[in-house]
Amino acid sequence: MKKIVSKKDIAHLDQRFRANFINSIEGFKALNLVGTIHSNGGTNLAPFNSIFHIGANPPLIGMVSRPDTVDRHTLENIRSTGQFTLNHVNETIYRKAHQSAARYDTNVSEFKAVGLNEQFINGFSAPFVQESKLKMGLELREIKTVELNGTYIIIGEIIHIEMATNKISEDGFVDIQQLGTITVAGLDAYYKTSLLERLPYAKPLM
Amino acid sequence: MKKIVSKKDIAHLDQRFRANFINSIEGFKALNLVGTIHSNGGTNLAPFNSIFHIGANPPLIGMVSRPDTVDRHTLENIRSTGQFTLNHVNETIYRKAHQSAARYDTNVSEFKAVGLNEQFINGFSAPFVQESKLKMGLELREIKTVELNGTYIIIGEIIHIEMATNKISEDGFVDIQQLGTITVAGLDAYYKTSLLERLPYAKPLM
Repeated sequence: MKKIVSKKDIAHLDQRFRANFINSIEGFKALNLVGTIHSNGGTNLAPFNSIFHIGANPPLIGMVSRPDTVDRHTLENIRSTGQFTLNHVNETIYRKAHQSAARYDTNVSEFKAVGLNEQFINGFSAPFVQESKLKMGLELREIKTVELNGTYIIIGEIIHIEMATNKISEDGFVDIQQLGTITVAGLDAYYKTSLLERLPYAKPLM
Repeated sequence: MKKIVSKKDIAHLDQRFRANFINSIEGFKALNLVGTIHSNGGTNLAPFNSIFHIGANPPLIGMVSRPDTVDRHTLENIRSTGQFTLNHVNETIYRKAHQSAARYDTNVSEFKAVGLNEQFINGFSAPFVQESKLKMGLELREIKTVELNGTYIIIGEIIHIEMATNKISEDGFVDIQQLGTITVAGLDAYYKTSLLERLPYAKPLM
């Protein structure tokens, strides 16, 4: 059986249904906990599944923030401090990571609310997640507004990486599956992975 | 054992090593084959792992294109026709998908070169991948330039969806694992997935 959905069909869907549907057909995504700090010292933690690669030199990562959700604390903190952390979610902490998406009051730190520990690194104000096995500290480089729907694309440069392994392949590859990193589909479906294979650099055969 | 990598360390890495390293620490990513067509009728296919969610209403997807690689055919075609397709990669076709990244001549269609079949849908010029089990047709809405490194963020609106299943959960969720969709880490490591669980909408507990 196959199913075809048109632009008109999509427009007529119930809002929550559409959010689940569109999010789930986009494929498996990188799941990271984003850690930030307010100028008053209050910390904030929120899951983001819209992390994407922009470049390796300099190492630039993008992520999307909506202005109308809990994400806004993250956005405000990044704007005012210029820093944020990305922390891979592993099998041990994904339920806590999911719970950190709840709409807590501004004066509640999601770290405390969900039971994850803050980790601070010299010279960097934004909090890392101690339980994460691959974490990055980023400095804000640019925020782009997407006028089409009022979202923001936050672009940061990786300035610090901490991994719970010292194994890096000769060619630079890090096995994030071995670090327990998981992936997400839709808004709430969590998956572990199993390696099929690594393939060699592709060259034309004809 | 743990490993710490600084901004300075990253800057001093060999270029190919750095590309593998930075790409592999960003988490598992959505892998899609992007189908486009030239105004002369020549088709083009290329794998992209930088697909990200921008919004559900309207349904907007972003992806990153570098100007200095094979991606440029994709970018040029999208610019001139205003259309492209996204096709999930499954376990049966991932080797062909990987091979489509090779730098073929402009007059060679990657569809033919790697052995995937073009599928055309009435009223839409860009080619879909017949072997893909979840495919989307998108219309270009905007291209943003990232001045930081000369890349482009292509933003498209989903106007057509075709799935090899008619199973959509009551809440809008589509099980892409059941469709065989796989995920990628780094530039060349392919993984299948295994569901841990879906979690209910998160609400504050305190």
